[in-house]
Amino acid sequence: MDREKILTELSIDTPSKIILLVMDGLGGLPVEGKTALEAAHSPYLDRMAAESSCGISDPVFPGITPGSGPAHLSLFGYDPTEYLLGRGILEALGVGVDVSANDMVARGNFATLKDNLIVDRRAGRIPTSENEKLCERINHFLQSREHTEIELFPGKEHRFVVKFSSEGLSDVLSDADPQKENNPIVYTKPLSPEARNTALMVNSFLDDVTEFLKNSEPANTILLRGFSKHPSLPSMQDLYKLKPAALANYPMYKGLAKLVGMEIIEVGPEIIDLFDRIEEIYAHYNFFYVHVKKTDSAGEDGNYEAKIAAIEETDAHIPRLLELNPEVLVVTSDHSTPCPLKSHSWHPNPFMLRSPTAMPDRITHFTERECRQGYLGRFQALWAMPLMLAHAGKLKKFGA
Amino acid sequence: MDREKILTELSIDTPSKIILLVMDGLGGLPVEGKTALEAAHSPYLDRMAAESSCGISDPVFPGITPGSGPAHLSLFGYDPTEYLLGRGILEALGVGVDVSANDMVARGNFATLKDNLIVDRRAGRIPTSENEKLCERINHFLQSREHTEIELFPGKEHRFVVKFSSEGLSDVLSDADPQKENNPIVYTKPLSPEARNTALMVNSFLDDVTEFLKNSEPANTILLRGFSKHPSLPSMQDLYKLKPAALANYPMYKGLAKLVGMEIIEVGPEIIDLFDRIEEIYAHYNFFYVHVKKTDSAGEDGNYEAKIAAIEETDAHIPRLLELNPEVLVVTSDHSTPCPLKSHSWHPNPFMLRSPTAMPDRITHFTERECRQGYLGRFQALWAMPLMLAHAGKLKKFGA
Repeated sequence: MDREKILTELSIDTPSKIILLVMDGLGGLPVEGKTALEAAHSPYLDRMAAESSCGISDPVFPGITPGSGPAHLSLFGYDPTEYLLGRGILEALGVGVDVSANDMVARGNFATLKDNLIVDRRAGRIPTSENEKLCERINHFLQSREHTEIELFPGKEHRFVVKFSSEGLSDVLSDADPQKENNPIVYTKPLSPEARNTALMVNSFLDDVTEFLKNSEPANTILLRGFSKHPSLPSMQDLYKLKPAALANYPMYKGLAKLVGMEIIEVGPEIIDLFDRIEEIYAHYNFFYVHVKKTDSAGEDGNYEAKIAAIEETDAHIPRLLELNPEVLVVTSDHSTPCPLKSHSWHPNPFMLRSPTAMPDRITHFTERECRQGYLGRFQALWAMPLMLAHAGKLKKFGA
Repeated sequence: MDREKILTELSIDTPSKIILLVMDGLGGLPVEGKTALEAAHSPYLDRMAAESSCGISDPVFPGITPGSGPAHLSLFGYDPTEYLLGRGILEALGVGVDVSANDMVARGNFATLKDNLIVDRRAGRIPTSENEKLCERINHFLQSREHTEIELFPGKEHRFVVKFSSEGLSDVLSDADPQKENNPIVYTKPLSPEARNTALMVNSFLDDVTEFLKNSEPANTILLRGFSKHPSLPSMQDLYKLKPAALANYPMYKGLAKLVGMEIIEVGPEIIDLFDRIEEIYAHYNFFYVHVKKTDSAGEDGNYEAKIAAIEETDAHIPRLLELNPEVLVVTSDHSTPCPLKSHSWHPNPFMLRSPTAMPDRITHFTERECRQGYLGRFQALWAMPLMLAHAGKLKKFGA
């Protein structure tokens, strides 16, 4: 019997509450001897560590740098090596497209066609404002042709997402993209018989848009790749009998939370907004995913001071979560984003779990290197969910 | 190649000896700052820790609270997520029923039938003495009808175990239990064609007993559930070429040891009896499973002082095991039973392994939190068996 099936059989619905505070990209590497977390003045996180079991967790497995998708799935208890999310679906979630069970999405580029050859795969990197206008014009055109099942969503520069909504679509399609410049338009090909009708529809859409854009040089055609249907993950309700809510401001994280069945709570853009909002809705759910983005953004920018500031800003609100007194409070990151690397990395996440049934260890500073000495040791982030469920009294005994 | 197959291919028969001392439910949580193990005065366990590699082990995986069955299978090197033991078989082992390869067992309740409805699924929780008399009467009745293939074994109050012994039985049967009161008798149904004859036999037994009990109100019928055949596990002899003996006083643990092919050594009920007995039989086996029950019973009762006393009582006998000078001596628990929880829990087990080939660490107190800092770190209990075999020189090199 596998991990997921065991958890589903053992989990029970109880009113006990779990708060999972994800400080995105929190883990780091030293800058002049100290990581941002080591350098930050974070007395409330440190005090919480003294009452918690601490550890470090690998998002996927040692050495693997995860995108936001796999890193979050793992924290939510979904094996990221089993539940693979297509690039199209992640791009769609990132720009805030609402994707449902019958939908298929793809990543698009505006491109330049000249003498029947794609001469620029990015249409000279047109400004985002131009992209937004083009998408609006194309959507109007599609509506006028009663193609209400297709919609474009602008991204940055030349990038957009297209959503096809219809029953019976199949994403077993090759990319409609020549990959290299100075090649003719490439149409999508069905990679399986059941994708034939979908390929016909996509290619006719491609022709229609190219015809419509013929006087819009440099953006006079489009390329499409990464066709992905809604991944239809089992919900956290079905797997763990939870009533989960997501407090996140960025589209990507709201999208990921929605994929696993969480209710999306609208929150403002500031860190304080998360803590104001959880207090308001606390009575109505029993699992809360709270997402702080600033730690990751600062890491991506290599801005060590900004990362320290984001940690300190979050720290100041920790007492408000303790005040709610959930049965389980976890603080961790989804992946590390060390300032020296300016990108996601494979380094494990600092992790702490506070609960009346947690074994307190002797860790009094919530940092990467201190957590390593904690009671939980080093573990796969996938085990965070069973640990949270167990400490919240939501798992029955296995066998007799 | 999977773990089990690798171990079987690499294991060799040698005279070297392994003692696995299981202090049932030993792991705990702090009471006023200290776990029972931390509070106990246990100088011999501590001295042994100083000569051992220490660690903590998860019985199944993080967050999972195991029953005694899965927890012990794991220690014996059997993956508890692969070898699932039915409720019926565990109940049978618990009351000391001898289950062989052709046998099928089920859990039974005496119940009350009135106007063709089950009005009490527990027959008013009749006293155990009444239950024992009823089982004896029914067994006589079955013998008189030459139904020697069926036998009842009384449990506590209204509960019993029934054993069916015959070739070709199948346990793919639904429960013969309405689950809710004020419903008619429910017969078992075969859930697979090959279970048809078994279902006919079970249902005819059910009718016969109900007829026989018709004047025995409140216990005038029976319910049966959890039909389980003998799980037919590969033996420790076949898997690891060991000659294993079990020193345990409680039926459940003797039953589990028998399932994996151990020879059962009769021992008295006291802790000292285990140590007297192992000295007597030491020459005749090369693997010894020694089971101390009192630590778990005290944990289940939430009796912190009794748990400390059980640890100290066991500690006093540790020098006798050292005197035997086995190549490998392991002291651990099967699962934790923290006094504050009064039940099994998911917390990892303290673990130490003493052997001339063990890396000594700097741990000088055998406690949950000290072991965490040991050389073995945190690991799945399933790895205890390959570690014991390796340190006993019973595993060849893997590959060249």
